[in-house]
Amino acid sequence: MAMAEAPGARAEIVEVGPRDGLQNESVHFDTARKRDFILRLLDSGLRRMEVVSFVNPKRVPQMADAEALLESLPQDRGARYVGLVLNPRGVERALRTAVHELNFVIVASDTFNRKNQGVSTGDSLAAWFEIARLAQEAKVPCGLTLAASFGCPYEGEVPLSQLVELAQRAAEAGPAEIALADTIGVAVPAEVTRRVKAVRDAVGGTPLRCHFHNTRNTGLANAWAAWQAGVRVLDASAGGIGGCPFAPSATGNIPTEDLAYLLSRSGVETGVDLPRLLETTHWLEAQLQRPVPGLLGRAGPFPPGA
Amino acid sequence: MAMAEAPGARAEIVEVGPRDGLQNESVHFDTARKRDFILRLLDSGLRRMEVVSFVNPKRVPQMADAEALLESLPQDRGARYVGLVLNPRGVERALRTAVHELNFVIVASDTFNRKNQGVSTGDSLAAWFEIARLAQEAKVPCGLTLAASFGCPYEGEVPLSQLVELAQRAAEAGPAEIALADTIGVAVPAEVTRRVKAVRDAVGGTPLRCHFHNTRNTGLANAWAAWQAGVRVLDASAGGIGGCPFAPSATGNIPTEDLAYLLSRSGVETGVDLPRLLETTHWLEAQLQRPVPGLLGRAGPFPPGA
Repeated sequence: MAMAEAPGARAEIVEVGPRDGLQNESVHFDTARKRDFILRLLDSGLRRMEVVSFVNPKRVPQMADAEALLESLPQDRGARYVGLVLNPRGVERALRTAVHELNFVIVASDTFNRKNQGVSTGDSLAAWFEIARLAQEAKVPCGLTLAASFGCPYEGEVPLSQLVELAQRAAEAGPAEIALADTIGVAVPAEVTRRVKAVRDAVGGTPLRCHFHNTRNTGLANAWAAWQAGVRVLDASAGGIGGCPFAPSATGNIPTEDLAYLLSRSGVETGVDLPRLLETTHWLEAQLQRPVPGLLGRAGPFPPGA
Repeated sequence: MAMAEAPGARAEIVEVGPRDGLQNESVHFDTARKRDFILRLLDSGLRRMEVVSFVNPKRVPQMADAEALLESLPQDRGARYVGLVLNPRGVERALRTAVHELNFVIVASDTFNRKNQGVSTGDSLAAWFEIARLAQEAKVPCGLTLAASFGCPYEGEVPLSQLVELAQRAAEAGPAEIALADTIGVAVPAEVTRRVKAVRDAVGGTPLRCHFHNTRNTGLANAWAAWQAGVRVLDASAGGIGGCPFAPSATGNIPTEDLAYLLSRSGVETGVDLPRLLETTHWLEAQLQRPVPGLLGRAGPFPPGA
């Protein structure tokens, strides 16, 4: 059934729940509970995961245990752990750990970059070249996320030309991957199609990844548009955690289980074991003591027993 | 911004909140409150609405006031009120009112049709020919919804050939429109693309409509896939009402406001006044005393002030 895509079609889901998800939850996960979460995700077939952030522990106390967490994680299960870095000092910390990949962020709008990173987009671009060099010397792949690629909470529209120019300049540093992130959840599929094509044309052979939030209920439609535009790597968080469904502006990532359902029933393999993953989302609900935004955990897969 | 579609691209949203939505809510709306709801929807720019059901009042008491409600609604605002009918007696009732359109339903799987309509799919098909004839004699447009077009809760997969054969036979009665309905919210976009194309090839020039539920978070992606496949009429309910977000199997329609946001930001006009519609979803939340599944009411449109 539902084999509309070419046989053997495959997408990679990058699970960002342990970092992007938990960082925006009010319930604190200590190192042992984070490790438990990550082991459950491994059991669900997920392999590539953003698990830590090497940022100032005073600014993001939830992520202060990056080294201890990485130390505690298994290295024998084919996992690829990704760590977020925002400056060269973070890279130095990261390179002393067993992290497999780094990821840096530049915000596509200057105002938001200043609020988030404390410097201009131009300064972040300069830092990016230094970070990419450090990672390459250490032979650790380093990707780059372009945040607010589809719109900025301060500046509003982010012109396509501005995004493309930033991507083109950043690509010169040789990122392992460039991600277009809809940080505030405003993207729509037609715009995903357009921006993915324009950025791909500007960055040569650099692989693209997309990162969507379901803030306005368009996240899964955007993910499918990205797939159709040729993107083969998509971020998601188990349960869609990262934003409270009752807050004035819910900002959770697209739910991993809903994305895996959509893809697999469309004939795109993801390696996710859905029933196992749903056990994890139910476990997450117990930890957070609230329903998560993901819907498959309530409705169940289809056909029943699938 | 975001004018990916051809200039002048336009989709019609059929608002089904007053019927499909309210019928599945536990809070009872009397005739005056239903009228208030519909007037608010008219103020939001929606014109075509499923407002009543001419079924046995003993079976569906929420819809017992069909005649009184239609009597109370304005006829001077360009509205097109649609009434659901499930048998010739319902058609006779409907034709004595000011309803503008009728809609009949056949379930694409026999087991579900027997549970829902009490007869086999074949018997419903025979009834459909009688109903289409009655409507045509009265010069009232009558559409046909093929429920469970993407999967059945009892039989599981609904083979594409079964759906296409049913659509082809039903089209011989000359429906004003045929709707593919994902009644239980299991569809994925690749399957929407495939089924819309196959059914269109089978029904000649009959216009197609699609009806999605967001049960597994794929509803908006499905709606966009339907648009891309050439469908220009989509059902939705204000707030996504019709299923409780906390029930084991939430089954609300796709939210009108989220769909209108997705379409308009993709360059597809819908005629919906988003700020006015969001006032209505907030009013609905007050009536139902719970948050609705629609997300735009929490996050707001983008860019701010749009």
